[in-house]
Amino acid sequence: MRALHFDGSLAVRDVVSPEPREGEAIVRVRRAGICNTDVEIARGYMAFRGVLGHELIGEVVHAPDPAWIGARVAGEINLACGSCETCRRGLGRHCPARTVLGIAGKDGAFAELVTLPVVNLHRIPDAVPDDVAVFVEPLAAAFEILEQLHFDPSSRVAVLGDGKLGLLVSLVLRQTCADVRLVGKHARKRAIAEQAGVRTAGVDDALGPRFDIVVEATGSEAGLDRAIAIVRPRGTIVLKSTFHGRASIDSARIVIDEITIVGSRCGPFEPAIAALASGRIDPRPMIDATFSLEDALRAFQRAQEPGVLKVLIAP
Amino acid sequence: MRALHFDGSLAVRDVVSPEPREGEAIVRVRRAGICNTDVEIARGYMAFRGVLGHELIGEVVHAPDPAWIGARVAGEINLACGSCETCRRGLGRHCPARTVLGIAGKDGAFAELVTLPVVNLHRIPDAVPDDVAVFVEPLAAAFEILEQLHFDPSSRVAVLGDGKLGLLVSLVLRQTCADVRLVGKHARKRAIAEQAGVRTAGVDDALGPRFDIVVEATGSEAGLDRAIAIVRPRGTIVLKSTFHGRASIDSARIVIDEITIVGSRCGPFEPAIAALASGRIDPRPMIDATFSLEDALRAFQRAQEPGVLKVLIAP
Repeated sequence: MRALHFDGSLAVRDVVSPEPREGEAIVRVRRAGICNTDVEIARGYMAFRGVLGHELIGEVVHAPDPAWIGARVAGEINLACGSCETCRRGLGRHCPARTVLGIAGKDGAFAELVTLPVVNLHRIPDAVPDDVAVFVEPLAAAFEILEQLHFDPSSRVAVLGDGKLGLLVSLVLRQTCADVRLVGKHARKRAIAEQAGVRTAGVDDALGPRFDIVVEATGSEAGLDRAIAIVRPRGTIVLKSTFHGRASIDSARIVIDEITIVGSRCGPFEPAIAALASGRIDPRPMIDATFSLEDALRAFQRAQEPGVLKVLIAP
Repeated sequence: MRALHFDGSLAVRDVVSPEPREGEAIVRVRRAGICNTDVEIARGYMAFRGVLGHELIGEVVHAPDPAWIGARVAGEINLACGSCETCRRGLGRHCPARTVLGIAGKDGAFAELVTLPVVNLHRIPDAVPDDVAVFVEPLAAAFEILEQLHFDPSSRVAVLGDGKLGLLVSLVLRQTCADVRLVGKHARKRAIAEQAGVRTAGVDDALGPRFDIVVEATGSEAGLDRAIAIVRPRGTIVLKSTFHGRASIDSARIVIDEITIVGSRCGPFEPAIAALASGRIDPRPMIDATFSLEDALRAFQRAQEPGVLKVLIAP
């Protein structure tokens, strides 16, 4: 089959079709989204080699239980061992023996076919179009913040970064009763959030009193410094950005202001599917282009152009 | 009066005796402890100029209410405005307009006399000797961790750093039912913790499974990296070290493992006083030397020698 493969450089080429292991289904990919993590991987992050891609909507073409055949599904990306202490604690997304779709030890979704354990699959309601359903995985990562922190009506919240993740986070946090502000530099991207009812501000705008909660989703090292500067004493910073390399921080400020920093990664699929199915969140204004799998290199270039949001691949 | 003054360099010299402001008492210092923060300040941290010192036990010699005269007291170090929004939220220790004794905008305790607001004073029971009571402030900083985090019987906890703060933290966490391990490189310091019933390990010892909670009290940048390496996914790192300069961290690891980092600074005095008064915590094995105020420069040198724990000044 054809796939976008990375072995130090990216190429669309023929690869061996994936063989399902015990308990795994084969999914024919209908749409796959390019994430900043994919771009970082192509720059050396995670030292991954193989087929990239972890955001997908597809159709089950093979499964141990035939009831799955034909189902439209999104797939959780962490493949846990299921038997270690971490898994027994219910933290399979953190299983130390896990592989991660298109990120660590497991070929991903920029391909015609992908395999995933059936336990990782979530059915997508028929009424949810592919272009919406492909956002389940990144939207789940935004919902993770609601699993980690309590938001109340008096919470003042800033989301730093108007990229894909920052936009999705602002749309999710908009569902709470907290006072949410998206801070970003692109008028076009901020307009997408504003259309959905999110208040926004430019990066040089005065932001008023310091925030109770700041979500760092800029994807850059400087974002964490900015977050530390605008969070109140005893406030919380949610760290969402992953990037290749180390970050320099003013650790004394964290101690003196007793700031809490919470790392936040993958999240629960069901609330994301429910928000998309109900129409409460519509991510389609974020789609800038869709390319065929053969054009995946162009898709990758496009995804890295300044100001571009979501780029999809349609195998 | 005589005092240890810092204006870019340290000197014992005559300074003007402090004048009490409204609501302030004058305290004659009986003992004052040298903290690593003092050493950092003398290296440029906080850009402080004035009389150093913030750990003290003393006797009230002047107060608005004469009932305080003659009382033996320890003093909270943050002088809050009492009227801003932060103070109204009960977070006076984080008042943005605060001064901090011997650290920011307020002359400190390496002097014959010091002034403090009466609201900052805590009476010390007669049975608690000066050499014990002078530990109230740093011990309160260790108790702060119990105000911030929940420790349960199944919590596996590591304290990194067998310096003064790490030892006090281990003695405090020993009061919980959690499984606590102090990790440090000095056999003599670890023996102090072991005498108090704390299990210890060397920095190169195998530590077993990753920890639920890691307290970083090494005072060095490398400590945070070590903490990130030994905390479990979804675990918590308590950041206690303050040092001059920035720290470099593997921020992707924080995100991927969804680690929480909690900055922790000053804490509640009453539990510290109660623990010292009951004898549950006896910090005296940590005292390495006591110098007169005239010898404060030698005291400072001694405090910076490798392996030295608490050095006291007796004005």
